[in-house]
Amino acid sequence: MGGSDVDALLVSHLTNVEYLTGFTGSNGACLVGEGIRTFITDFRYADSAAGIDGWDVEVVSGEWLAGLAALASDAVGDGQVGLEDDHVTVRTARMFAEKLSGGASAADCGGLVERLRRSKDAGELAAIAAAAELTDSIYAELFEAGLSGRTEADIAAWVMARMREQGAEPSFPPIIAAGPNGALPHAEPGLRPVGGGDLVVIDMGSKLDGYCSDCTRTVATGEVGAEATEIYELTLRANQLALEAVAAGREAAAVDAVARDVIDEAGFGGSFGHGLGHGVGMEVHEAPRLGPRSEDSLVENDVVTIEPGIYLSGRCGVRIEDLVVVGTDGVAANLSSHAKSLTIVS
Amino acid sequence: MGGSDVDALLVSHLTNVEYLTGFTGSNGACLVGEGIRTFITDFRYADSAAGIDGWDVEVVSGEWLAGLAALASDAVGDGQVGLEDDHVTVRTARMFAEKLSGGASAADCGGLVERLRRSKDAGELAAIAAAAELTDSIYAELFEAGLSGRTEADIAAWVMARMREQGAEPSFPPIIAAGPNGALPHAEPGLRPVGGGDLVVIDMGSKLDGYCSDCTRTVATGEVGAEATEIYELTLRANQLALEAVAAGREAAAVDAVARDVIDEAGFGGSFGHGLGHGVGMEVHEAPRLGPRSEDSLVENDVVTIEPGIYLSGRCGVRIEDLVVVGTDGVAANLSSHAKSLTIVS
Repeated sequence: MGGSDVDALLVSHLTNVEYLTGFTGSNGACLVGEGIRTFITDFRYADSAAGIDGWDVEVVSGEWLAGLAALASDAVGDGQVGLEDDHVTVRTARMFAEKLSGGASAADCGGLVERLRRSKDAGELAAIAAAAELTDSIYAELFEAGLSGRTEADIAAWVMARMREQGAEPSFPPIIAAGPNGALPHAEPGLRPVGGGDLVVIDMGSKLDGYCSDCTRTVATGEVGAEATEIYELTLRANQLALEAVAAGREAAAVDAVARDVIDEAGFGGSFGHGLGHGVGMEVHEAPRLGPRSEDSLVENDVVTIEPGIYLSGRCGVRIEDLVVVGTDGVAANLSSHAKSLTIVS
Repeated sequence: MGGSDVDALLVSHLTNVEYLTGFTGSNGACLVGEGIRTFITDFRYADSAAGIDGWDVEVVSGEWLAGLAALASDAVGDGQVGLEDDHVTVRTARMFAEKLSGGASAADCGGLVERLRRSKDAGELAAIAAAAELTDSIYAELFEAGLSGRTEADIAAWVMARMREQGAEPSFPPIIAAGPNGALPHAEPGLRPVGGGDLVVIDMGSKLDGYCSDCTRTVATGEVGAEATEIYELTLRANQLALEAVAAGREAAAVDAVARDVIDEAGFGGSFGHGLGHGVGMEVHEAPRLGPRSEDSLVENDVVTIEPGIYLSGRCGVRIEDLVVVGTDGVAANLSSHAKSLTIVS
């Protein structure tokens, strides 16, 4: 159990359940420990659960939490069952503990499955690369078709439809932020038509076969002014220098500082108001975290984003984001292949 | 503070934050108490938060939880700050409590905003009705266009695109479950083309202006056998009798029993393996819960689903779901207007 003291871990975070078993329904849990490998679901998934290899399957027919507690009590006897305290709510943990029987007790024990999920194996890297490639192809199609005159919401809907037609889902709702909306790092696509001469920030990712991608490009719809050009070039330089700083063993905060220093020293201090990046896998935001206050260090086969940005309130914004595989000596692979030089699209 | 002992409540569940302030970003919280009305967000939303009327706005620039704890400590002095224990994780609650300063302490205090959200006012009822009407219009279009020969995934993508073209979002990923897939109450749309003579279960809802709808219809793509017809008619009868049992003051478990008894008595006991329904509002699943073990009673202007189903493993399934407003003497309005008699579509 990864060095913890518990006799079994109750895995209830659905992404972790999917990682362990492949189950993709809306209600399931795993009880894992020495000699314990039980997948638990309810009536609705009894049929699909029967196809999960290598796991004992239990179907809870009564109250869900009582069913979990009964199975956990049976499994650990008078021992301890660990809960994923980084996912379970205070109320659920209290109710679960009250329902345990015999001498069983509950303990806080999160992050174990996340630790397994962090460094990706070859199959996972291939799945993420395929999701990134699909995203890149949608960028190419989108810029070929042009942006001007379409609303942000229309472009976002088109992006999602193209993903779905190719068997993927958006890994998050796409951000299409034109002109002054580009200064809002998490703008929601609105009914503003993209104009000529706008900077347009486009942040999107696909989820394909259970794995996510994430990529941002900023393009211009015509000539943009000197300020927009300056922050574009500066963001690109921050992106490139940070990519050169990536390697297993590096502190994530130090990689963040490389990009942040470039932006601060050019006089835009404070306008890069989010972290440099984050891990990507089954979830579009997972460990590690790259930011000024991160305590993570990069490890081989981490898949992380490198996404500096500069946001000028009321005017415009730029973000340039690549998705990379961390190697021992540097970036092992940059999965975001779409061009990064400032491009004018129609 | 609704009878609780705390001096301020920290509202962190984003739907509750949106209910109180209208904020729709990905990170925000409210601190509410006597003379305390503070909306808290981070850098990314500093611009959009400035537009929130009637609230003091605080932008946390450092670590989020430390910022929340500092503001909460200032607000309650040596008093208690309530956390939404039904949403906050065990780990976050522990870390938050450790960061409180002075004499401030934390207490479990969930469900207060949910209680405000439960009985809908006229504006909310109108928003839900509009979302339901949009869903009904998509049913009409879909059945006019026909189902046979299209894959479940294609139909689901088309449904979502039609919602988005009309300014809505799906309130959950649509379920399109044809033939034997209909026996899986939460089937994911697959690459199986809908055949002729299939029962097809379609469960979908729109989210429009922040409010959700939810509706299920089951149709036939040609002549279906005697068994399919029997379970269709039985499910419809269970739906209709349960609708007649709805009224403010009724126990939710008793309304569930009306539908369940019809199905059990016809010899299909055990094949209606989920609750009769649930509340719908800003979230597609909210209070009250209608099921055999529910302890809720219906109140006026609850908006709830009535959705009995019969599932025959490996063969087919039927579910018929209406969305209704609870009135003092019965159903005040059935927001699902699409016909429920067994319909054959192409």
